[in-house]
Amino acid sequence: MSNQVFHKFTEIKTKEVAPGFFSKLIHTSGNTINFIDVKQGNSIHRHQHPHEQYSFVIEGKFELVVNDVPMVLDAENFALIPSNAWHSGTAITDCKIIDIFNPVREDYRAL
Amino acid sequence: MSNQVFHKFTEIKTKEVAPGFFSKLIHTSGNTINFIDVKQGNSIHRHQHPHEQYSFVIEGKFELVVNDVPMVLDAENFALIPSNAWHSGTAITDCKIIDIFNPVREDYRAL
Repeated sequence: MSNQVFHKFTEIKTKEVAPGFFSKLIHTSGNTINFIDVKQGNSIHRHQHPHEQYSFVIEGKFELVVNDVPMVLDAENFALIPSNAWHSGTAITDCKIIDIFNPVREDYRAL
Repeated sequence: MSNQVFHKFTEIKTKEVAPGFFSKLIHTSGNTINFIDVKQGNSIHRHQHPHEQYSFVIEGKFELVVNDVPMVLDAENFALIPSNAWHSGTAITDCKIIDIFNPVREDYRAL
């Protein structure tokens, strides 16, 4: 991101970080914030990373599996995924999701 | 927060962190995430803090002033407020806002 304070989402290039997962990525000094649009039925395979991940489903329903425990997330509940926890997920409906990573996802910055 | 992965917003006590600003606060290892409901017309006075603040208006319109520059935020644009920048704001409509602080707001944790 530039040093400016105010930004428009339209200025951020959308990246398909996993098949069907369309992301607007914001990298700050300490976090990557990932605004995701995903259509019903798309899945992210089981994976892990050292970053903590805080996941909020703003619209829709998304089944998240963390360390083999499944939970349907929606606007009423959320997940705080520990460092290196194995996780996967499937969009039960079309979803808008905000994932916050701590620290920055340098792998995403390089996309 | 507890060490568990999955959480419900209903389990988080709502706190009025400024007059008319009703917050659900989530504290992680590196961030405080503040889900705010604010009614039209409420304002937060000019203030500063060492934490960086990333502000996203999920619903509604909120006028944010950072270092004397005003901008109306809505779902299309957002703000990355630097450490110690002076800022204030007013809800132009009823709003749902997500503020992410880096690092943790220990003052909010103590509320």
